[in-house]
Amino acid sequence: MSESHVGREGLLVVLSAPSGAGKTSLCRAAVERLPRLTHSISYTTRPPRSGEVDGRDYFFVDPTVFEDMAAKGEFLEWAPVHGNFYGTSKRVVREIQEAGSDVILDVDAGGAQKLMARKDLKAVFVFVVTPSFAELEKRLRGRASDPEEEIIRRLKQAREEIAQFEKYDYLLINDEFEEALEDLLSILRAERRSVHRVDSRWVEKEFLGT
Amino acid sequence: MSESHVGREGLLVVLSAPSGAGKTSLCRAAVERLPRLTHSISYTTRPPRSGEVDGRDYFFVDPTVFEDMAAKGEFLEWAPVHGNFYGTSKRVVREIQEAGSDVILDVDAGGAQKLMARKDLKAVFVFVVTPSFAELEKRLRGRASDPEEEIIRRLKQAREEIAQFEKYDYLLINDEFEEALEDLLSILRAERRSVHRVDSRWVEKEFLGT
Repeated sequence: MSESHVGREGLLVVLSAPSGAGKTSLCRAAVERLPRLTHSISYTTRPPRSGEVDGRDYFFVDPTVFEDMAAKGEFLEWAPVHGNFYGTSKRVVREIQEAGSDVILDVDAGGAQKLMARKDLKAVFVFVVTPSFAELEKRLRGRASDPEEEIIRRLKQAREEIAQFEKYDYLLINDEFEEALEDLLSILRAERRSVHRVDSRWVEKEFLGT
Repeated sequence: MSESHVGREGLLVVLSAPSGAGKTSLCRAAVERLPRLTHSISYTTRPPRSGEVDGRDYFFVDPTVFEDMAAKGEFLEWAPVHGNFYGTSKRVVREIQEAGSDVILDVDAGGAQKLMARKDLKAVFVFVVTPSFAELEKRLRGRASDPEEEIIRRLKQAREEIAQFEKYDYLLINDEFEEALEDLLSILRAERRSVHRVDSRWVEKEFLGT
């Protein structure tokens, strides 16, 4: 189907969730499913883990490079996490959008709030939760890798983040993964039909010209 | 998937379009595809055509009954068309929503604007157009049943209606029917995940309780 009636720039979708709700898997599956959806790769100062590839998993950079980029305002948002820095590059997002692809960002709730605060950004904000708090706790404990204090800290933080759900545009309940994925794909498809995205010059040209 | 987190009331979707753009076929196909989507049957004072069934195609009523209903404020919107009256019953829509089903209304642009003006109505407004004015003309002429003046009148009216597209929430381009249908189904699915539909008591209960 022709897409000439929507602005040529791709959508920007920001996917956020408490730790353990499954946003990273959803994001990955959505990108696999949709040819015209691209995940924006973040910059980080933490060293690559085994198997991680620069330019695929992250752009791995030195702290001095990161600080320089931050100082020049090259990030849409950035934050320290456990002593390392993570940031979303304006240029990376813009290049994907200008190529006509939709962009999906996978950020924590703090990052989402920073993006919401930007006036220069037209984005769709999606928050993912488990069907209940008990289920979130079960999933976090199921990982079996984190110490107890860390799990308790994450659960407390999850509660604070979920209390802010009304700041987002959509709330996805990740109960059945496939259902949640279909929800996310539907949001992307529906948002492309939002009248806010329609190029009014297209309407002028096709229908209102003389 | 459990739907306990969204308000129990179904969505109200208003589908509108210029004559010839295919809204009736889209509406019918969407209802066939989704078990929990119901078309709201209109009241009319025009006599049934051959094959039409009362309570399936329309509720056929006498002008005196219709006038009485209108006077009592029982319609969400009503209008005369070619000397007959057509109206959408508040009760019919409410009963479908209360049964937990989504409702779809198939109305002309005048009807859609009347519904937009109602403050008591939370509805999603979708406007359907052909990919171009030339294509609309082709489809109207393809019917081969209308006199030339009627076609010219409809085309003029279509132009006026399309100029108002920004009043709607979504614009569907009915180029490939199946694609437009998928768009409509995606809108319904996405709207169910809109934070405006989330029952905040559900969030309280599942996540914020002590």
